[in-house]
Amino acid sequence: MTDDLTEIQARQAEFVAERDWEEYHRPKNLAMAISVEASELVELYQWRESELSAACRENEELREATREELADILCYTLSLADQLNIDLGTATVEKIEANSERYPADDPPSPME
Amino acid sequence: MTDDLTEIQARQAEFVAERDWEEYHRPKNLAMAISVEASELVELYQWRESELSAACRENEELREATREELADILCYTLSLADQLNIDLGTATVEKIEANSERYPADDPPSPME
Amino acid sequence: MTDDLTEIQARQAEFVAERDWEEYHRPKNLAMAISVEASELVELYQWRESELSAACRENEELREATREELADILCYTLSLADQLNIDLGTATVEKIEANSERYPADDPPSPME
Amino acid sequence: MTDDLTEIQARQAEFVAERDWEEYHRPKNLAMAISVEASELVELYQWRESELSAACRENEELREATREELADILCYTLSLADQLNIDLGTATVEKIEANSERYPADDPPSPME
Repeated sequence: MTDDLTEIQARQAEFVAERDWEEYHRPKNLAMAISVEASELVELYQWRESELSAACRENEELREATREELADILCYTLSLADQLNIDLGTATVEKIEANSERYPADDPPSPME
Repeated sequence: MTDDLTEIQARQAEFVAERDWEEYHRPKNLAMAISVEASELVELYQWRESELSAACRENEELREATREELADILCYTLSLADQLNIDLGTATVEKIEANSERYPADDPPSPME
Repeated sequence: MTDDLTEIQARQAEFVAERDWEEYHRPKNLAMAISVEASELVELYQWRESELSAACRENEELREATREELADILCYTLSLADQLNIDLGTATVEKIEANSERYPADDPPSPME
Repeated sequence: MTDDLTEIQARQAEFVAERDWEEYHRPKNLAMAISVEASELVELYQWRESELSAACRENEELREATREELADILCYTLSLADQLNIDLGTATVEKIEANSERYPADDPPSPME
């Protein structure tokens, strides 16, 4: 159940509606909120070495803090999708498909290109 | 199917693995990437009036551009969750529940508090 | 004296050197740090109405908090300029001149263009 | 002359005034603009190794791109300081002094603390 993006979005929308926060949840403000949460994630890593994922996975404190920030990011991302009637799941699958064509697997460029 | 977060995450992980991008997809770099995509979203709204969602919904160009950026944000968010073995759906549902207790619905504070 | 950008940069560089922080003050990390401070600034405004400057000037608490964040941003901006031997004052004046040509004053476009 | 922060701020303010952009240069929007420019800086480094400054200095393309983004950041930082009558030079010197007390030089903690 907690894998169903539509269900999670409905829960977040209900949370916002119950508090009469539509006034605050304007798209401009939600864009800012996503960006602020993304920076709280960046803050966790800003002075750290650029470790591979395996090393980070063993750092339980870092992993838990990352989990909290990713959840915050998804909450606001779902709120903005909800406000603008965007089907976030379909949009993301289509994006992965578009990226798959843009970066061919048989001759993958670096992600910098 | 495109509502299943675990399924979308698996697709994104496969996309990354097929291109041998684990070297790039270090947690530090993915945190930066999420933040960069979030700012591309902010850029869409930075000089605009702070309109209510209903007005933004009628602006098809803005809505489509927002959809693209939200998808980019979720792609990288899922990549980081994947790298650190984080169950993003559960984390998000738990966050909504925690926020529901923090901000009581019967006497909702402003989100600034 | 506190108007002299070279002098302020020298002070910030001395602060970093005295603490042996060159190891941390890698360009990648400093870029992240500037971005994190910029988001702390965004956080001050994310749920607020989009007021004109005159209204914000009268809000002493907001003005003081903004002042703190702008100072943090300039500290890290000067650190990165210092690390890469960039003359920030000249770069900024040249940028203003380039923008002046890009956006003609006699027929100014909106900044969105 | 291009070291005088007050002089650079006056030039940026004149650039804005000549284009009648006060309407756009609201504090909320300028905070967003600084953050967007900071992320363009982050984008330059997001997939790169975390090199020491000496290595980055030798990469002329990266150094030039960094210079451009730092100038953009300072332009908007000065605009916001101007809109709110903030003396950015004094604020920054005071911040360096406060940081000097917070992080003692004779027993420097890591910047993470």
